[in-house]
Amino acid sequence: HTAKTVVSNFAQQGKKIVAIGRNYSAHIRELSNEAPEEPMFFLKPTTSYLQSGGNVEIPQGVTAHYEVELGVVIGKTGRDIPQDEAEYHIAGYALAVDMTARNMQDVVKRKGHPWSAVKGFDTFTPISAFIPKVAVSDPNRLTLTLKVNGVTQQEDSTAHMMFKIPRMIEHISSIMTLEEGDLVLTGTPPGVGPLVPGDKVECTLTDRDRRELAALSFGAVQRQGGYKFAP
Amino acid sequence: HTAKTVVSNFAQQGKKIVAIGRNYSAHIRELSNEAPEEPMFFLKPTTSYLQSGGNVEIPQGVTAHYEVELGVVIGKTGRDIPQDEAEYHIAGYALAVDMTARNMQDVVKRKGHPWSAVKGFDTFTPISAFIPKVAVSDPNRLTLTLKVNGVTQQEDSTAHMMFKIPRMIEHISSIMTLEEGDLVLTGTPPGVGPLVPGDKVECTLTDRDRRELAALSFGAVQRQGGYKFAP
Ligand SMILES: [Mg+2]
Ligand SMILES: [Mg+2]
Ligand SMILES: [Mg+2]
Repeated sequence: HTAKTVVSNFAQQGKKIVAIGRNYSAHIRELSNEAPEEPMFFLKPTTSYLQSGGNVEIPQGVTAHYEVELGVVIGKTGRDIPQDEAEYHIAGYALAVDMTARNMQDVVKRKGHPWSAVKGFDTFTPISAFIPKVAVSDPNRLTLTLKVNGVTQQEDSTAHMMFKIPRMIEHISSIMTLEEGDLVLTGTPPGVGPLVPGDKVECTLTDRDRRELAALSFGAVQRQGGYKFAP
Repeated sequence: HTAKTVVSNFAQQGKKIVAIGRNYSAHIRELSNEAPEEPMFFLKPTTSYLQSGGNVEIPQGVTAHYEVELGVVIGKTGRDIPQDEAEYHIAGYALAVDMTARNMQDVVKRKGHPWSAVKGFDTFTPISAFIPKVAVSDPNRLTLTLKVNGVTQQEDSTAHMMFKIPRMIEHISSIMTLEEGDLVLTGTPPGVGPLVPGDKVECTLTDRDRRELAALSFGAVQRQGGYKFAP
């Protein structure tokens, strides 16, 4: 069955990652940003996926921040998807971290440059296994947690998302077609911060019954070679 | 032969488009931008490809500019590709137009927001057929032309690219792995401007012997439905 294969292997076969920014008001405040009037998104390349158990590689000169997020895996290609049909385009979910080169981002935001490099380094999207939709009773009542070296840094409910998933899918698909295997990242709650080489990260996604739907763990190492950020 | 299939069908099978901005000094001047110290790039989704003969759909409220560009089709996956090995990662070329929602871009540049929507609308990357590398003796000595309704608006030599193709491949692959079937857009020469519904666009890529390597033509129509830009 083709559809099942593509979505359960979305990290290998999907073509794009569309990430929503500024979707939890407490996170907007911690970065002193302004709340958007409509969902704000950027693209990450699928070459940034990192399977659980791997290492995020921190480029030289980069302050790399973690952002734990709920991911939505698209199961059916669509364009101009109305909110009340969004459900039919969702195949499932995943637990993800949207790694961000924060000091580079500060520069590109000031200069009005694109965000693609800042968000797109190899290993900058740690990702869990696919969670079939049937396992999730309500995506707006999930708890995201992220621990660094055993200490909880992010813990919040997806109930605090400002734009809900159907609105995100409506907005993105009014601009670019969403395809089977694409991933939509839904924004991060507060508590973001830097990783340094040697750090160990553990994330969980749990439901209202405290059932663990996904776990994701990874280390952080210094990137050997590659781009060096020297502002 | 798998490699041949992926690259000759890069628009269907490739996963990403990496587009270089501000690579011809005369174009930088016409938009009053500053020249970058290193190649500046952004991602476009592959859902934005438009085959020759189709119509660019201009979203409501959007001023959509054409930018004719030489595309480089990646034939071999690589990371941290040195300039002197870049050649081995190139499978061929294509003639492309990087459509841009210019009035939206002015806003996101001012706010420091991502460029992904501005560059990523469906139909915003008109693309020619694949040109095998063997047909191109020197990618730095090609002429790009773009006509709107029979009138030449862009005509320049790729000799005027500030960052050359091996430098672009080195830079991009130091940040994100380039994969077989990916497309690198190399920037646009001066002469960019708006399209309006009813316009007919014709582009050519020719070599020093005035041999036509590729042609690309498309129309412009008003997008029905979809996103409306209302700043
Ligand atoms: Mg994020
Ligand atoms: Mg992509
Ligand atoms: Mg361009």
